[in-house]
Amino acid sequence: MSGTPAPFTADDYKTRMERAAQAAADAGLAGLLVAPGPDLVWLTGYRPPATTERLTLLVLAAGQDPVLVVPTLEAPDAAEAAGAPALTLHDWTDGKDPYAATAPFLDASGRFGISDNTWALHLLGLQKELPGTSYVSLTDALPMLRAVKDAAELERLAAAGAAADLTYEEIKRVQFEGRREADVAADLAHLLRQCGHEQVDFTVVGSGPNGANPHHEAGDRVIAHGDMVVLDFGGLMHGYGSDTSRTVHVGEPSAEEQRVHDVVRGAQEEAVKAVRPGIACQEVDRIARAYITEAGYGEFFIHRTGHGIGVTTHEPPYMIEGEQQTLVPGMCFSVEPGVYLPGRFGVRIEDIVTVTEDGGRRLNNTAREMAIVH
Amino acid sequence: MSGTPAPFTADDYKTRMERAAQAAADAGLAGLLVAPGPDLVWLTGYRPPATTERLTLLVLAAGQDPVLVVPTLEAPDAAEAAGAPALTLHDWTDGKDPYAATAPFLDASGRFGISDNTWALHLLGLQKELPGTSYVSLTDALPMLRAVKDAAELERLAAAGAAADLTYEEIKRVQFEGRREADVAADLAHLLRQCGHEQVDFTVVGSGPNGANPHHEAGDRVIAHGDMVVLDFGGLMHGYGSDTSRTVHVGEPSAEEQRVHDVVRGAQEEAVKAVRPGIACQEVDRIARAYITEAGYGEFFIHRTGHGIGVTTHEPPYMIEGEQQTLVPGMCFSVEPGVYLPGRFGVRIEDIVTVTEDGGRRLNNTAREMAIVH
Repeated sequence: MSGTPAPFTADDYKTRMERAAQAAADAGLAGLLVAPGPDLVWLTGYRPPATTERLTLLVLAAGQDPVLVVPTLEAPDAAEAAGAPALTLHDWTDGKDPYAATAPFLDASGRFGISDNTWALHLLGLQKELPGTSYVSLTDALPMLRAVKDAAELERLAAAGAAADLTYEEIKRVQFEGRREADVAADLAHLLRQCGHEQVDFTVVGSGPNGANPHHEAGDRVIAHGDMVVLDFGGLMHGYGSDTSRTVHVGEPSAEEQRVHDVVRGAQEEAVKAVRPGIACQEVDRIARAYITEAGYGEFFIHRTGHGIGVTTHEPPYMIEGEQQTLVPGMCFSVEPGVYLPGRFGVRIEDIVTVTEDGGRRLNNTAREMAIVH
Repeated sequence: MSGTPAPFTADDYKTRMERAAQAAADAGLAGLLVAPGPDLVWLTGYRPPATTERLTLLVLAAGQDPVLVVPTLEAPDAAEAAGAPALTLHDWTDGKDPYAATAPFLDASGRFGISDNTWALHLLGLQKELPGTSYVSLTDALPMLRAVKDAAELERLAAAGAAADLTYEEIKRVQFEGRREADVAADLAHLLRQCGHEQVDFTVVGSGPNGANPHHEAGDRVIAHGDMVVLDFGGLMHGYGSDTSRTVHVGEPSAEEQRVHDVVRGAQEEAVKAVRPGIACQEVDRIARAYITEAGYGEFFIHRTGHGIGVTTHEPPYMIEGEQQTLVPGMCFSVEPGVYLPGRFGVRIEDIVTVTEDGGRRLNNTAREMAIVH
């Protein structure tokens, strides 16, 4: 594995915060309010030890220094965040009203973008404290705020992808037949960590009929000879995500299993080939869906084709019907068509793809042909 | 350890949902809206594999069958929840509007309690879809909804407390001096799991000056001879929480260290002794605070005295100035005064206490005298 990338600096975070404040102003907003979660990590490098009912909120507005409102108890932690030198901490003490403490930093009649995962408790507190304000979710207002990755981010996403690929090469060698899905899932988690991930987000092992539930994780089912097995795994490495799927088979597949796998592989190939600047996200979905529909399996492709990835493994842009956002160089997202035959088996094949100046580049590069495992 | 308690049944969840819907009606609300999180676990037994931007929402209203709105992809998981037989699943598909899918189940001019941790994204979606509705956070509307534990819940909390006590007895035997805080924290996590916890929520090891930051977790500092060390650890066992703190010393303490420890221990003892039905939560805080203030350390007790515990390790009722809620038999909460001398050391002593018919009963029962570790 390559070495650890240089950490982001206070200047990096300052640039991101300024860019976000400017984007908010350009969108007609008085500012952005960002609670703990991926947006806050991306903007400040700060991740509180736990998300609780105590308000932590970053206030960004063009022409105003960034302010992070934090509980007094957590101020020492916040002060150690890499982005802390680029903002002012404003702490409030247990027993005081955190919304009143935040109000002086807000335009009392402004419209604000607020991070999607901010607790309703806090949004209601702000709406009550400042009845003249209005709000829109950050993703609705600025869906592409984190979508275009810079070179330092792409380096991390590529490293996470390579580590996931190594995990796939290793998992093919383990015993599948006779072991529980959960055991293979534990192997995946161990391998991801061994290959450099600091966080494992999901390790799906969907064997036989379980593979037909795209959100099945891994359970007590014992994998049998003749099973198709959907593997879908990822997490964070150096703070950036991996997410890849391959569908393997225990022993030789039937003709139908092979055919479904070929269809999904063809759909994924066509959709990835279509990636280039200027096409709409929904086009990526349509191409994969048309391919599967023409092959007769359209009704069994029951989810969107992909999602963005960055400091989370699940974020805009979404490759989904209705998403007219066009692709921009630096965007990173999954392309993961699937076919799910209820009660029988499922197939999903997924790579992370980044948009280049003239096309797309896969960050996952293991073979997509159906691997035979034992 | 005692055996696994009998799982909660669909009837248990039905009773909880009916009680919650009735409490909402009694509070003048049109109903309750509950997103994934502890409230949803408590009401339905359902915990989605991940909390994402896809809406999952339980709708409860008196005289109406409970409805769980779920993404189609997650419907098979939701159908397996223990409480699923007591509710109706209503699924929505990627690309459709989840708020429009939810609207038919809501009174379009009603005021609803909404779970605190519901994403702002979803609250804004509902406010937009049904402009005639209004909202209050579930904790503001019905703060004590989950606060009074029944016998089956108390059994679980007592078992979690006993496991945490066993963890403390074991951790006292490990090597402290010369090891990093993070190593002792890893021992704590391992012991909690070994003693039956399925989830570890926190393992604070605050040595020397780090102990003076009440929210310090555990870091690279190497523990030295002469250090005070704050230990604060807990998690979930059979779905219910543990949370206990003891402050130990590596080698013999100084007279001042002993004095501060005695003050905190005395404050904790007095506050626990005061626990009985009918007194206000803030009284518990006042008693601990007065004791520490009289001893001259009032300015160094910089947090509230306690928080409730149940399916989370952090919930109402809060033992804090201003909380006039009176104690009721079956309530469970921490009593955890502390003194934090910046740059020097901290002391915190914490037990979970449950309110009985005529007093309080500790669910943590290890010695509170300062233990000497090596």
